Amino acid sequence: METNLASEPLYQRVAHHYRGAIRAGTLAPGARMPSVRSMTRLHQVSLSTALQACRHLEDEGLLEARPRSGYFVRMARRLAMPPAREPDTAEAVDAARYVGIHDRVSAFVAQGERSAVKHDFAAAYAAPEQYPGEALKNAAMRALRQHPDLLVKPVGSSGDAGLRAVLARRALDAGMQLTAHDIVITQGCVESLNVALRAVCQPGDTVAVESPAYYGLLQVLESLSLRALEIPTSPSTGLSIEALELALQTHERIQAVVVVPNFQNPLGCVMPDAHKQRLVELCSRFEVPVIEDDTYSALCDDGVPLKAVKAWDRDGSVIHCASLRKTLAPGLRLGWVSGGRWHARIQMLKYAQSRANEALSQITAAEFIASSAYDRHLARLRRLLKAQREQVAECIVASFPEGTRFNVPAGSLLLWVQLPEGCEAQRVSDAALERGIRVVPGPLFSNSKRYDNCLRISSGFPVTAEAQQGLRELGRIAGGLINGMP
Amino acid sequence: METNLASEPLYQRVAHHYRGAIRAGTLAPGARMPSVRSMTRLHQVSLSTALQACRHLEDEGLLEARPRSGYFVRMARRLAMPPAREPDTAEAVDAARYVGIHDRVSAFVAQGERSAVKHDFAAAYAAPEQYPGEALKNAAMRALRQHPDLLVKPVGSSGDAGLRAVLARRALDAGMQLTAHDIVITQGCVESLNVALRAVCQPGDTVAVESPAYYGLLQVLESLSLRALEIPTSPSTGLSIEALELALQTHERIQAVVVVPNFQNPLGCVMPDAHKQRLVELCSRFEVPVIEDDTYSALCDDGVPLKAVKAWDRDGSVIHCASLRKTLAPGLRLGWVSGGRWHARIQMLKYAQSRANEALSQITAAEFIASSAYDRHLARLRRLLKAQREQVAECIVASFPEGTRFNVPAGSLLLWVQLPEGCEAQRVSDAALERGIRVVPGPLFSNSKRYDNCLRISSGFPVTAEAQQGLRELGRIAGGLINGMP
Ligand SMILES: Cc1ncc(COP(=O)(O)O)c(C=O)c1O
Ligand SMILES: Cc1ncc(COP(=O)(O)O)c(C=O)c1O
Repeated sequence: METNLASEPLYQRVAHHYRGAIRAGTLAPGARMPSVRSMTRLHQVSLSTALQACRHLEDEGLLEARPRSGYFVRMARRLAMPPAREPDTAEAVDAARYVGIHDRVSAFVAQGERSAVKHDFAAAYAAPEQYPGEALKNAAMRALRQHPDLLVKPVGSSGDAGLRAVLARRALDAGMQLTAHDIVITQGCVESLNVALRAVCQPGDTVAVESPAYYGLLQVLESLSLRALEIPTSPSTGLSIEALELALQTHERIQAVVVVPNFQNPLGCVMPDAHKQRLVELCSRFEVPVIEDDTYSALCDDGVPLKAVKAWDRDGSVIHCASLRKTLAPGLRLGWVSGGRWHARIQMLKYAQSRANEALSQITAAEFIASSAYDRHLARLRRLLKAQREQVAECIVASFPEGTRFNVPAGSLLLWVQLPEGCEAQRVSDAALERGIRVVPGPLFSNSKRYDNCLRISSGFPVTAEAQQGLRELGRIAGGLINGMP
Repeated sequence: METNLASEPLYQRVAHHYRGAIRAGTLAPGARMPSVRSMTRLHQVSLSTALQACRHLEDEGLLEARPRSGYFVRMARRLAMPPAREPDTAEAVDAARYVGIHDRVSAFVAQGERSAVKHDFAAAYAAPEQYPGEALKNAAMRALRQHPDLLVKPVGSSGDAGLRAVLARRALDAGMQLTAHDIVITQGCVESLNVALRAVCQPGDTVAVESPAYYGLLQVLESLSLRALEIPTSPSTGLSIEALELALQTHERIQAVVVVPNFQNPLGCVMPDAHKQRLVELCSRFEVPVIEDDTYSALCDDGVPLKAVKAWDRDGSVIHCASLRKTLAPGLRLGWVSGGRWHARIQMLKYAQSRANEALSQITAAEFIASSAYDRHLARLRRLLKAQREQVAECIVASFPEGTRFNVPAGSLLLWVQLPEGCEAQRVSDAALERGIRVVPGPLFSNSKRYDNCLRISSGFPVTAEAQQGLRELGRIAGGLINGMP
């Protein structure tokens, strides 16, 4: 295909240069692109033109941006699909209203437990064998031997001091300055979110959330009689700070903002550090507490810890919630919360809600996290997840109907797939479950109809030949249901 | 002392007969009284006269009634103190209002954790060594060995099916007909109460509770923005059904009734079966759900299981909450809830609040409870608790100021002590804690000033010479603070 280069805009010329190299395989899938700065020198263009060229190639699905690492050639090169559509952030934010998500979530959970699931692309954690089961088992046995009355002696009210200390130590790497005293151990991030929301909100209050948002959060909001105000959220950079600002200006009573800054669920996006900072400043200006759900940040492909929003917190107005369930062990119910200004109230609410956690799992986790075995485990898990994610992405590219769009995040295990308009995700999900394939349909992540054509597909499990078969079948089902055709 | 028997009422004559035998030691402390029926034959009196005689001796502190076992000679015979004062059930019930208990409970918990406690008479569970620590440890190790991926594999949403099955089996003995499907496992009775209340109430609603009530319940009510309406409660027979009826007739919006029918906290009383039945009928008539907190019933001295209020439930309007923390292991956070009509909603709320419990402790507990070792453990624990309770009671009788009143319950481990009027329990408690003695002051159990002179004293720990010393010191402190004297 011949093109008249002279008549093209500059950035197109630059893009053309690299498009050819990618198509030819000179720049192989997964390779790092030359730095933007070196492009400016080579092509004698400005920094913004070079960047524009990269973004253009990204839009074409040839490149992907990884947080703080620059641009890389997308893996599923030949069949690349376009990235997920960005939301219109200027769009007026919906009026606050109750989420009606309870029944949907309960029905979805029950449906999953009733069905014979062969291919689980719904679980938001990795396969059991990808966690350090043996080492944790041994740590638990040691704890039982060393503390003979562990199961019959009650524990203190904020959780095991040893676990709190290692968590405070790890938080340092994400940019937070915490001590063991700032942390309350919980039954998992969901319990952290419960007590955090109860600490800063009254029933009836409005809470700003990402759109789409983790369905567990929406369910918590509804169960606490809170209203959710969905803020446009980019599949690549997360919550739109502009849209949030607009909402804070126009809605009188936003009592809290809940964000998942790192590997958002379901989008998989990471908020750039600059956005995290602006978020804290904005909310501080409006005196609105930020509740940060930082469940996945340790699962970043390149192993460089992502910063928490709380890293920019100066006045204790960010509540940091996290969990060990995805990173260490799906069978442990261990989360924590650093409540900032609301620490005492959160401590009290946790006590009133479920008392202190059991000691055994806390001691077990503390021992493991304090050791270098935890780092080795994380490195291995990240590697496995990256490979699985790319394999799942390739299957999607190969078998999903034309018009499907999605991004491949640079960590964690969630893929947010936008099916062609008119393809109802709920019907795809129902039909898939009948064949033993479980995915999460878009309507679970919002109170609106905006995601009726979306699916969340997890890549937490090994992509065996059968799993690939399952994904192909899923693609066929989706293809068959375009425009409501049976 | 000579008395003119002829001029006395009949029941006095009968009482006199036995009073002499008790004083002489012919009827030894702890001995069972002749049956009421045999008294009617011996003294040629009616059943009601014989009963009146027993009640009279009970009022004098010489006898004690044990649920369904009849009358027994009180242990602390020579120095018997009068029983706790009965509430005036005709007294108009207080208007509903918010409980202001949060800060008091938090302060109390924090104070206890800060202080060097030598003598713990505040803990509402037995000493660690009185629980089957070794057997549970072994069961936990077996579970870990048998299920290598226990810690890394998530569990189903209502809890371990095996544990739910053995709990359903045990519930049969308390008169309930449940299956494993009717039970949701929780993090303890406190979590059960949370989800039960959230299932049937909206923030702002009024809930009828016993007066005095377990402070943990009051704290839950406050944290859920519910109002507590305190209903007069007898230290011997529990919640006054008459007073509750009056309240239901005069207050429009009572949305639930919470009771601890067996070994109430703090009173230690057991509701007679006839009252339990009337309670269910009354609440059914007014269409008000009953939430039953059945934490202590397995700790009945004579080992005959006490009936749950839910045994009389015909239409699913009783929610049964319980826990293994007091009976099996204070170090396990395991409770459960049978939600009756609200089962599905409770299941959803538990999921939204903290997800499913960890598997390890559930499997461990299930194995132990299913075996006869649990029955042997309970029999031993009951024996220990009975002995400790009587020893503590004897110390109180021997060293507390004149005018002190209390009952000795027929099970569990709580003693509710009414100090002489004007003796402020909060000051006693504060002064005692300075000396390393921890008790729970009455104000924690009510939003009123009614229990300002009361203390809850636990007898869960072995009554060593030092513990006796501690109780004597407590008595001296109380004596020194009568009428506010320093
Ligand atoms: C963003 C997010 N927060 C919280 C949770 C739940 O965390 P936990 O299992 O620790 O309660 C999940 C799990 O899917 C999640 O994706
Ligand atoms: C009446 C009552 N209910 C509930 C509880 C707390 O139960 P758990 O520790 O199982 O949450 C207690 C403990 O003191 C209690 O006395």
